[in-house]
Amino acid sequence: MKLTHFNQFGRARIVNVSEKEKTARKAIAKGTIKMHSETLAKIIDGHMKKGDVLSVSQVAGIMGAKKTSELIPMCHNILIDGIDIDFEINKEKNEIDIFASVNTVGKTGVEMEALTAVSVTALTIYDMCKAIDKDMVIKDICLLEKIGGKSGHYLKKDVKINEG
Amino acid sequence: MKLTHFNQFGRARIVNVSEKEKTARKAIAKGTIKMHSETLAKIIDGHMKKGDVLSVSQVAGIMGAKKTSELIPMCHNILIDGIDIDFEINKEKNEIDIFASVNTVGKTGVEMEALTAVSVTALTIYDMCKAIDKDMVIKDICLLEKIGGKSGHYLKKDVKINEG
Amino acid sequence: MKLTHFNQFGRARIVNVSEKEKTARKAIAKGTIKMHSETLAKIIDGHMKKGDVLSVSQVAGIMGAKKTSELIPMCHNILIDGIDIDFEINKEKNEIDIFASVNTVGKTGVEMEALTAVSVTALTIYDMCKAIDKDMVIKDICLLEKIGGKSGHYLKKDVKINEG
Amino acid sequence: MKLTHFNQFGRARIVNVSEKEKTARKAIAKGTIKMHSETLAKIIDGHMKKGDVLSVSQVAGIMGAKKTSELIPMCHNILIDGIDIDFEINKEKNEIDIFASVNTVGKTGVEMEALTAVSVTALTIYDMCKAIDKDMVIKDICLLEKIGGKSGHYLKKDVKINEG
Amino acid sequence: MKLTHFNQFGRARIVNVSEKEKTARKAIAKGTIKMHSETLAKIIDGHMKKGDVLSVSQVAGIMGAKKTSELIPMCHNILIDGIDIDFEINKEKNEIDIFASVNTVGKTGVEMEALTAVSVTALTIYDMCKAIDKDMVIKDICLLEKIGGKSGHYLKKDVKINEG
Amino acid sequence: MKLTHFNQFGRARIVNVSEKEKTARKAIAKGTIKMHSETLAKIIDGHMKKGDVLSVSQVAGIMGAKKTSELIPMCHNILIDGIDIDFEINKEKNEIDIFASVNTVGKTGVEMEALTAVSVTALTIYDMCKAIDKDMVIKDICLLEKIGGKSGHYLKKDVKINEG
Repeated sequence: MKLTHFNQFGRARIVNVSEKEKTARKAIAKGTIKMHSETLAKIIDGHMKKGDVLSVSQVAGIMGAKKTSELIPMCHNILIDGIDIDFEINKEKNEIDIFASVNTVGKTGVEMEALTAVSVTALTIYDMCKAIDKDMVIKDICLLEKIGGKSGHYLKKDVKINEG
Repeated sequence: MKLTHFNQFGRARIVNVSEKEKTARKAIAKGTIKMHSETLAKIIDGHMKKGDVLSVSQVAGIMGAKKTSELIPMCHNILIDGIDIDFEINKEKNEIDIFASVNTVGKTGVEMEALTAVSVTALTIYDMCKAIDKDMVIKDICLLEKIGGKSGHYLKKDVKINEG
Repeated sequence: MKLTHFNQFGRARIVNVSEKEKTARKAIAKGTIKMHSETLAKIIDGHMKKGDVLSVSQVAGIMGAKKTSELIPMCHNILIDGIDIDFEINKEKNEIDIFASVNTVGKTGVEMEALTAVSVTALTIYDMCKAIDKDMVIKDICLLEKIGGKSGHYLKKDVKINEG
Repeated sequence: MKLTHFNQFGRARIVNVSEKEKTARKAIAKGTIKMHSETLAKIIDGHMKKGDVLSVSQVAGIMGAKKTSELIPMCHNILIDGIDIDFEINKEKNEIDIFASVNTVGKTGVEMEALTAVSVTALTIYDMCKAIDKDMVIKDICLLEKIGGKSGHYLKKDVKINEG
Repeated sequence: MKLTHFNQFGRARIVNVSEKEKTARKAIAKGTIKMHSETLAKIIDGHMKKGDVLSVSQVAGIMGAKKTSELIPMCHNILIDGIDIDFEINKEKNEIDIFASVNTVGKTGVEMEALTAVSVTALTIYDMCKAIDKDMVIKDICLLEKIGGKSGHYLKKDVKINEG
Repeated sequence: MKLTHFNQFGRARIVNVSEKEKTARKAIAKGTIKMHSETLAKIIDGHMKKGDVLSVSQVAGIMGAKKTSELIPMCHNILIDGIDIDFEINKEKNEIDIFASVNTVGKTGVEMEALTAVSVTALTIYDMCKAIDKDMVIKDICLLEKIGGKSGHYLKKDVKINEG
């Protein structure tokens, strides 16, 4: 097992995938943002009425996913076939879970696109609420599931999948 | 206390800061990426010899911070005066702590730039190592300290600051 | 009167504004998108319940305004202090009026930023609804008002201003 | 008939097209910019001699079309196979008609790319001439024709097509 | 003398310039593209009549200069006050000299912006002509002059300045 | 032989490649940056220990190659399958040779991507060292080899290829 993003001289490269086959691929990532209960109440209130933090954050997450190869140096630029983001609000823990699901048919996976979607969504929630809460924490960003590609099916252990 | 990123109709806006004074500002953010011990060993090995994951990730984090206003919809575009990123490797926990420090003289803070720098750095570490470890988790991204601006000094409680 | 964006050889340039003073500036632009009545009904319905076309389009318009100097070749890159977008729905004409208001303190005006915000907002409405209506027309994009700068106050004649 | 850019929860998404076939597609869009006769005379004069407003605007429109998926949140990023832009100057009406034609072989259409090309071209004409004319109006941006894809051939009624 | 773009741990950073004064700055860069005589004849012919390679390349160079901080990792993003590009055609050597002049008032110089403008202009000439000439060489990209800033006036030795 | 990037009216366009077949393609480009011997010594020193100029420049070159179609107006956006960059240090000439190799399977070549990778890498070396050496010159950027596509194999004469 080795880090494929380095060439024989130990220098970073984008691995050549010219000879790989295109296959249907999907990745689902998850992350969580924790906040004060008052902050969560504001978000829920805005969602019910107007001033919807989650709606803005979702657009940001989708647009962020399309920027993945601009942000991550050794990431191939790919054609994204679909992006979906969903939220689960946990009032007891004062947390919002963010789920991002990305599809493509291509030579490389879309794990980074899904993880980037979750990260940008969470950062946007932080930005929209930071005037009232600077103690928010973005946590537990991880890959839940990956389908397609040579490395096969990946399913994170001990995680109840709740796809976006 | 209200969410300032919405106008009187409940629609998202970029708050007008035309009449605010420019002041010197600084923000320090932190995040952590947890991985298998073999993965951390590979990173440490590359750092000592060649194929340095952290070096690539740091460049990505710095460039990502400069893209903050492109990623976060209601974020003002600003002139960043300085960005510094540093790492602390914790071999016992199999974790790398990422610290980002951002400076500007401007009308708005640089919290989002510091948080974005941490996030993109962590995502790049994930990307560089995902061929050998898909179980990595990015966690505890938060603001450690904020200096300057009308809202004054912010220092996260219970966090030993270790500036980048 | 001449086109200032050309140099003495007739070649395009970005005019040097190094010696100009920074002043507070504002621009308000307007545009309209006309559609079938069924399309407008869908948009209004989504706005009331969920699936809000205008919310997505507004985020796009704000982010688009921040990209103005990337899109318009001879446009100076500037620091935008504020962006606000608003809509007026005209059920009799089956039209939505889009208003964008942009503020800065700088050496150049923000007319192009306001016009770009309106354009990108309208294009996004088109995109969100094109599955049910390809006959939509984007029309009458113009500058309503401009405040600040050497050329002084501009107010479009015969237009009832209704600021966003 | 429904708005496909929303998921079952009413949240915006990029529709998954992984299972769609790639087909050859083409879209032609049109728009018009109206101005004072003196402004049009300046543009024609520059085109004949030097300082060509339309040449700069055309480059901007082509580059803008390549940015479509960055500007329009729910737009798939695609590989554009060709972009052509053309102008028709109407001296009687003091107007310039802008035509953009975009080709691809892909899973989604290129209507938004053609409409974006027209919009950015028109905005650039505005920018290049705004020092002498702030009364310009960008109008009647619409899709003229669309070829390829499941929804089939679209031809705007009552419009004499004059392809770029 | 040391490389300022590294921190005390030897890691790359963007140097903090928060405490530096803003001053008027200017940089002039030059580069040359050499080609077959037939290629140069095509360019001259197009410039006289239509199909102007240099006009497109100039727009590209100006837009490229505005992307400098996106391309060069440790470069501060700045407000560019003016960009001008000019060409000198040398028929005896079958070369085109490219001159780029950039102005700002800021805390950092604009050398990289001028050098990037020259580079992107040259690359675009290459792209526009590569169908007929793949032997072109881009050469001698250098800083001619730099005005303003703490390091003072820089004038390249043995170079006859011919400002764009 | 004619310049294909212009339409029948002499206006710039992106050539329509919808009917071309996708083939495996590769391009190798080279460029050189010359500097003072003290500057080269600093780079070599940093590479051995820490503060590695070439490592940062290589990341920049790879990311720059992915931006080619944003920089070069008439360049098709493509899916890059692989990018590799390598350096040869020539202590006698005080020069660093930069080699970039780019792969794709597509309808158009990757010459511009390889040339852009070299250019951005060289510009970044300049930026990282300009505090100690403003006399650096970037020179002899050229295409070494091109494989695949209708125009066939291209090999630059009189150049000893040393692929990155």
